[in-house]
Amino acid sequence: MKDAAAAVAAPSPADTAALETSFIRSLVRQIRAHDTTGMWDQKPDTALLAPFVLTREQRRQIPIIADPDAKVLWRLEQFYDAVALLISDEAGVIATPMLQLSREGYGRVVVIAGMLVVLSRQLRDVHRFGFDTLTHLAAEGEGLVAAGVAAVNRHPEVALA
Amino acid sequence: MKDAAAAVAAPSPADTAALETSFIRSLVRQIRAHDTTGMWDQKPDTALLAPFVLTREQRRQIPIIADPDAKVLWRLEQFYDAVALLISDEAGVIATPMLQLSREGYGRVVVIAGMLVVLSRQLRDVHRFGFDTLTHLAAEGEGLVAAGVAAVNRHPEVALA
Repeated sequence: MKDAAAAVAAPSPADTAALETSFIRSLVRQIRAHDTTGMWDQKPDTALLAPFVLTREQRRQIPIIADPDAKVLWRLEQFYDAVALLISDEAGVIATPMLQLSREGYGRVVVIAGMLVVLSRQLRDVHRFGFDTLTHLAAEGEGLVAAGVAAVNRHPEVALA
Repeated sequence: MKDAAAAVAAPSPADTAALETSFIRSLVRQIRAHDTTGMWDQKPDTALLAPFVLTREQRRQIPIIADPDAKVLWRLEQFYDAVALLISDEAGVIATPMLQLSREGYGRVVVIAGMLVVLSRQLRDVHRFGFDTLTHLAAEGEGLVAAGVAAVNRHPEVALA
């Protein structure tokens, strides 16, 4: 995929609102934490997030035969790192993600706090990881965070073990 | 490492007892389950287990710079698969292992039952994964199984969630 910065369109009103959600802010913070040389300082958040957004048609065009691209795996990690970070903030625990992927793009991700699995998802077609819009990205992230926080609240003594 | 079958010495009395532990029997069952062509039918258990046993000196000679050998990763997986299998049997849950390794041989392994992390270990120098004797292998495995079963018993409602 080419550098997305040049191609970023102005976000829709819904996407503009999505940019202000705590999930997208956490994701952007997570991504920028990797920018130790300041190379992305001039890049707007929308440019950093652009590769997370793929239309259905774009997804369909990505082959799922070879190993997933290193960049898509990096984005997958950033996404679940952001989920874990926000669960940590909101539930007052230390939550960390663990990813286990097969070469074929199948796998499992869990977020763990103490001895509690606060989130567990099967992954497939990791090659095509992406969201229709920023609004979908925010909604999916917020949903996972809410589920994780609820799990902590059901078993706080296990999450703090 | 060359095929260990030719070089296997008769086990010591302690190791003979270790071969009868439920952990080693579970590990052997686990290993033989991969032998779909019957190639190992004639191999005694001691031959299959021989690569799990490394003297201190042998371990020291394995470089920890390059990626861990595929065979050592396979043995690591078999070991934790056997741990998870035995926890499942003894605690009446469905426990599965998850391994996350960096290229440098560091990582983390967890065994998960339901929403409970029944076991969590940091791994390092995975390149050198091995045990002084079969007795040590059995003791380490049984210890992990006992810890996992105890964790299930502390939080059965989470392990069955």
